[in-house]
Amino acid sequence: SVPQKLAEALSSQYGLNVFVAGLLLLLAWAVHASGVGKSHLLCFLTALMLLQLLWMLWYVRHSSSHRRLIRLKDTEAGARWLRGSITLFAVITIILGCLKIGYFVGFSECLSATEGVFPVTHAVHTLLQVYFLWGHAKDVIQSFKTLERFGVIHSVFTNLLLWANSVLNESKHQLNEHKERLITLGFGNISIVLDDHTPPCNCTPPTFCSAISQGVYYLYPFNIEYQILASTMLYVLWKNVGRKVDSHQHRKIQFKFHGVMVGLVLGVTVLAATIGVVVVYLIQIGRSKTKSESALIMFYLYAITLLMLMGAAGLVGIQIYRIDEKSLDESKNPARKLDVDLLVGTAFGSWLISWGSILAIFCAESCPPYTWYNLPYSVLVIVEKYIQNLFIIESTHREPEKLSEDIRTLRVVTVCTGNATSLTSFSLKRGAVAGDVTPQGSKMPPAVNGNTCLREGCGKEEEERSREGALGPACHPRFLQGNAKRRVLRNITAFLFLCNISLWIPPAFGCRPEYDNGLEETVFGFEPWIIVVNLAMPFSIFYRMHAAASLFEVYCRI
Amino acid sequence: SVPQKLAEALSSQYGLNVFVAGLLLLLAWAVHASGVGKSHLLCFLTALMLLQLLWMLWYVRHSSSHRRLIRLKDTEAGARWLRGSITLFAVITIILGCLKIGYFVGFSECLSATEGVFPVTHAVHTLLQVYFLWGHAKDVIQSFKTLERFGVIHSVFTNLLLWANSVLNESKHQLNEHKERLITLGFGNISIVLDDHTPPCNCTPPTFCSAISQGVYYLYPFNIEYQILASTMLYVLWKNVGRKVDSHQHRKIQFKFHGVMVGLVLGVTVLAATIGVVVVYLIQIGRSKTKSESALIMFYLYAITLLMLMGAAGLVGIQIYRIDEKSLDESKNPARKLDVDLLVGTAFGSWLISWGSILAIFCAESCPPYTWYNLPYSVLVIVEKYIQNLFIIESTHREPEKLSEDIRTLRVVTVCTGNATSLTSFSLKRGAVAGDVTPQGSKMPPAVNGNTCLREGCGKEEEERSREGALGPACHPRFLQGNAKRRVLRNITAFLFLCNISLWIPPAFGCRPEYDNGLEETVFGFEPWIIVVNLAMPFSIFYRMHAAASLFEVYCRI
Repeated sequence: SVPQKLAEALSSQYGLNVFVAGLLLLLAWAVHASGVGKSHLLCFLTALMLLQLLWMLWYVRHSSSHRRLIRLKDTEAGARWLRGSITLFAVITIILGCLKIGYFVGFSECLSATEGVFPVTHAVHTLLQVYFLWGHAKDVIQSFKTLERFGVIHSVFTNLLLWANSVLNESKHQLNEHKERLITLGFGNISIVLDDHTPPCNCTPPTFCSAISQGVYYLYPFNIEYQILASTMLYVLWKNVGRKVDSHQHRKIQFKFHGVMVGLVLGVTVLAATIGVVVVYLIQIGRSKTKSESALIMFYLYAITLLMLMGAAGLVGIQIYRIDEKSLDESKNPARKLDVDLLVGTAFGSWLISWGSILAIFCAESCPPYTWYNLPYSVLVIVEKYIQNLFIIESTHREPEKLSEDIRTLRVVTVCTGNATSLTSFSLKRGAVAGDVTPQGSKMPPAVNGNTCLREGCGKEEEERSREGALGPACHPRFLQGNAKRRVLRNITAFLFLCNISLWIPPAFGCRPEYDNGLEETVFGFEPWIIVVNLAMPFSIFYRMHAAASLFEVYCRI
Repeated sequence: SVPQKLAEALSSQYGLNVFVAGLLLLLAWAVHASGVGKSHLLCFLTALMLLQLLWMLWYVRHSSSHRRLIRLKDTEAGARWLRGSITLFAVITIILGCLKIGYFVGFSECLSATEGVFPVTHAVHTLLQVYFLWGHAKDVIQSFKTLERFGVIHSVFTNLLLWANSVLNESKHQLNEHKERLITLGFGNISIVLDDHTPPCNCTPPTFCSAISQGVYYLYPFNIEYQILASTMLYVLWKNVGRKVDSHQHRKIQFKFHGVMVGLVLGVTVLAATIGVVVVYLIQIGRSKTKSESALIMFYLYAITLLMLMGAAGLVGIQIYRIDEKSLDESKNPARKLDVDLLVGTAFGSWLISWGSILAIFCAESCPPYTWYNLPYSVLVIVEKYIQNLFIIESTHREPEKLSEDIRTLRVVTVCTGNATSLTSFSLKRGAVAGDVTPQGSKMPPAVNGNTCLREGCGKEEEERSREGALGPACHPRFLQGNAKRRVLRNITAFLFLCNISLWIPPAFGCRPEYDNGLEETVFGFEPWIIVVNLAMPFSIFYRMHAAASLFEVYCRI
């Protein structure tokens, strides 16, 4: 019974406080605060997850018992491919949980029970949450708003805290590896203390435990993506609580491989090359000074080439959009707004690192030659993200173009085939009056289109296919230009998608020239630069995955 | 010719990059990075200010030469009291600039020229910017959008960087004072190095220079508020570029002292008491261990009492709103949205510190008795901000209440006076149909009300006054309840306003128990806790000033 705005503030402030409390526990653990053990942190996280589990169970029960009531859906939220990728990441998260349970069993002598309870709870939590997101990510909650709002925001921040926890573990691991490399290379001037959290007893089968603790770190990047993805989906669900949704927005996103060979082949080549570069880098780095330098040079040269290609592709895409000016779709859409904010916001992280590198290069008293590759690399990282964000923002706001394209297509159909003209034009006019952006269905009789067919999908694929079939090869000339444009855009998007996946790999799996370069550390000092990188890197990594997800969506829309 | 959304992304990304680059220069200076001197930082800031100066000159010239064209105004943006307070802060900023110039003259032997150029440029920049904001804060820019968007966002981030620069100077000063106190109290176990940036030569009249460098720090808090206030006003201007404004929103905000004696007296008492407490605290702290402890206990007890009063006042306010449920005004309004986001976002800063204190109290191995006062204090800081934010958010979204109140008032007028009934009801109906929220003018003839009277103010005060005069004392019973409610709300708001001003004073002028308490430092470690406090404190301080500003606006609206 509280007004929308107030209920939002009530719940968001609650969520922020939970988040702050958790962040401070994480900080306390990270800096080895006296009196704060890992068990306190895990207790807190477990409690949060259990609370969320209870709420999700209540919500699922409650909504299944009210299934007959018509429930509004936000069709833009929780797309199928998003739920698919979250399932994939969740599976890896559960495997990670199993490994952690194995680790606990191995060290069970000296680990507290919470270290065993946490991964079990986390696995159950992951399972139920994926089930929940599959069933309810599109819900637009209109009843019992207060309890549901609190539940959703609690889930958002629980996932964010789990994300922060994973990020912290991963950062500590990367930092330790970096310190070990520095020790190997003989940098004695920096006081290096390994940040060790290994338990104070022996594991019963020692090889088993060391295998697990090594293997765990290859799975962390996926777990990190899972948590952040889950919290963004839940955040959209929260923004949708009590929202008034216009019912005109059920466009089915379709995935077609047709005509994107160039983009795909280039992208897959980049993906393979990146994996190769990362493997070589990880083998070479820290072995000796010359090997480290050659690994760095190789990485920089490769990244410079790739970023230039990506920037060029993005520029071409923007230019194509600029040729035919259209007003953009500015309608309210929480999912899209979040996507755009996240793109710009998380790019901030990598801009921070890049500007730090640029500053370091100009201020350093002596620059070894290989560090000069760092300059174009850093500049290109900034420019490429700038361009790519513009391209994605323009693409995701280009909804209405589809409509006019389809009208043009329909006109061609009408002119060429010459049948059903009256019906087509009639339903087209009707669609235009109602402001309907789904002209795919406009060849259906008005009665079917109007009322009974409110669910997603609804046999439109067949319609689409039959219409495409009706377009004989003789009818192309009129809209070839639009189609060619679309194909170029689709190739660009596919290429950029695979490039972003590729660029996600190096930092996520420990190929971080920002550490190994050494220049920034000498300018800013070891501690300050490590803090900057550790704060900014998670966002920089997330940017790549998020950009890939956005580009996938763009691809399906073009 | 670029679409709105794209132009926004173009300029905001530019602004973010400027900001990031500046932040890293600040960081480099703060950590004494090799090769980065203060002069580099000041050069960068001076260049940014000069660029902004050029742009502002161009804009002022350009808009005065196009004065005859009708320009849209966002009447919600840049309220007069906001411009008034920015002028006040700007005056102090200019005084600060003069002191800095004096400091430069004194140390001119060994300071680089940039240290003299910077304050001069800053003073000119402040002058012109205040002039600019007086004339153009309400503009809704519709032409030459790209250049103007870039100029405004450049100004936003220039001011934010100047803010960060001042905050950094202030934090360094506070930290040094804290370290000096620790040295006096004999804490030898923490390795304390004073972070000294004093120039390596003698000032010609020594007393003059030390007087200046002491005096400067009493002016910094005002300079900090000026910069952040300017950047929020410019941000609203940026959000308004190219916006479509509905013209129905020219309500004149009026300031009345009538019937708020209780709130004012209580508030002024609090203000006086706070100043007393701060003075005693600053004299006592760091002298000896017992004196420090008694100062801390005094501060905590005082703050606990005050926060409980404020929380109670806020709760009463919310309860009054809850009694008569009304739907809130959810219309688009960049100024208001920014206000709300800032309230919740900056509260985050103080929540971080408070949760840190709570965690420290529970995790510390030994708590001296005086630290226990910290627990209720920290809890109350969290709860009070939670409640106050809810109260402000509800108040600022309660626009339509005014309408119904006025309709009720008008009805009473109609019933009591019995004249002009047809005209009143006619124009009232007309107002309701047009969705007009300014019924103050509804007694005017339709022709006047409809077209010619689009400018703000427009003689409505006289209307208002004459209508209030028409309400004889005999006609009160019907709406006394509403008026009493309004008076209570106004008292609460005035009280909270003065309390927030009061609570702004202690942290801004160096009364920071988070440092002097010592408990958190032993739990988290000196360095981590100092970093947390220095990152969170500026937001916590800004919160108080911003809440006061919001409450002032609420007061004028009730």
